[in-house]
Amino acid sequence: MGLKLYELAGVADNRFSPYCWRTRLALAHKGLSAKTVPVTFGQKYKLTFSGQDRVPVLVDGDLVVSDSWEIACHLEDTYPDRPSLFGGDIGRGQALFVNTWADTVLTPGMFPLLVLDVFACADKADQPYFRQSREKRLGMSLEAAAAGQEDRLPGFRGSLEPLRMVLDRQPFVAGDRPAYADYILFGVFQWARLTSSYALLADDDPIFGWRTRMLDLFDGLAAKAKGFPL
Amino acid sequence: MGLKLYELAGVADNRFSPYCWRTRLALAHKGLSAKTVPVTFGQKYKLTFSGQDRVPVLVDGDLVVSDSWEIACHLEDTYPDRPSLFGGDIGRGQALFVNTWADTVLTPGMFPLLVLDVFACADKADQPYFRQSREKRLGMSLEAAAAGQEDRLPGFRGSLEPLRMVLDRQPFVAGDRPAYADYILFGVFQWARLTSSYALLADDDPIFGWRTRMLDLFDGLAAKAKGFPL
Repeated sequence: MGLKLYELAGVADNRFSPYCWRTRLALAHKGLSAKTVPVTFGQKYKLTFSGQDRVPVLVDGDLVVSDSWEIACHLEDTYPDRPSLFGGDIGRGQALFVNTWADTVLTPGMFPLLVLDVFACADKADQPYFRQSREKRLGMSLEAAAAGQEDRLPGFRGSLEPLRMVLDRQPFVAGDRPAYADYILFGVFQWARLTSSYALLADDDPIFGWRTRMLDLFDGLAAKAKGFPL
Repeated sequence: MGLKLYELAGVADNRFSPYCWRTRLALAHKGLSAKTVPVTFGQKYKLTFSGQDRVPVLVDGDLVVSDSWEIACHLEDTYPDRPSLFGGDIGRGQALFVNTWADTVLTPGMFPLLVLDVFACADKADQPYFRQSREKRLGMSLEAAAAGQEDRLPGFRGSLEPLRMVLDRQPFVAGDRPAYADYILFGVFQWARLTSSYALLADDDPIFGWRTRMLDLFDGLAAKAKGFPL
């Protein structure tokens, strides 16, 4: 048996995908370990068996689960006796809101600030694919998307206000202890840390302190991945 | 004993405060009833005993609790055997994120679309106070804030995307059944419904359907409050 996790790999095996980090931390939270299989953008053929072409993909015995949210639900339902990712049905419902906020506000807001750095982290052979697919998504060149970084920063930081206010009142999004909602959001900041030296957060921002706490979890699981200094 | 809830009252006793609706629905969720005490903007002296001047204020025996979030926590902790508002610690932590999103994105985004209608719903004697305090908060006249309503609408609707995506996948923010996170958000829409005929939502928006489900809860508690047609 054993678990197997297919995850994105960039140049020098940089595992920077925010979605894969959600899954990595969910596995650690459950006390589960998985053999990881690197997949560069050019190696999507490795995912054919999953019936789709995006990472992460988790193989758990006979089951193949793709999409980080579906994987979290699978782990919660399959390993109910291990520490809970959601804390019950209400927590699961609300975690989906955190997930959609991350995907529609946090990640798109951060992407233009990182895009050229992420591009540089893609495997050389993958860079033309990365450029073409992302420019199509952005509707402009990577360079145009990255332009005016300093002008964008206040707006990006402002968009984090709901998260900031929560972390000003409690150590984690899930309360006193971290849970899946924290992994959802931290994955996005870990993606930034692994690809870019850009200072997304002021160092007196409550989100900055939370990010440090997240890096320390599970014996520094996220901190051990080689990233830029904060 | 018995519970007593101090809540905002506008002209013709319109109880339109979004924060008070959070509390009303939280009480109904717990199966608790409270005697309500109307407080117009000009009657803040009625709140002096609470040591602050904002509604809602809940009096529960000897205890006085102000702030809708604190009231929800009080109800959850004091009546643990009744239906849960948060579903545990993780759910409570995450509900705070929904609360901060409502307070920093949803309410401020909606306010300019409603402001002149809310003004008209304030008790006549309260209108000068309402104008002065809100113009100070907005940094402009009510009329200037309300200008360009149609131009603002697409941005407002776009800001609801995280909520829309959740409600496209599940009937309530808290999952299959409503909980406090739903009351937080619905309170803001109820505020709009009780003050304004402005069509905030397209009728094929998943949020529209959710709002209708929320109006029907607890034998139509929210629907019974006289509002504008949706």
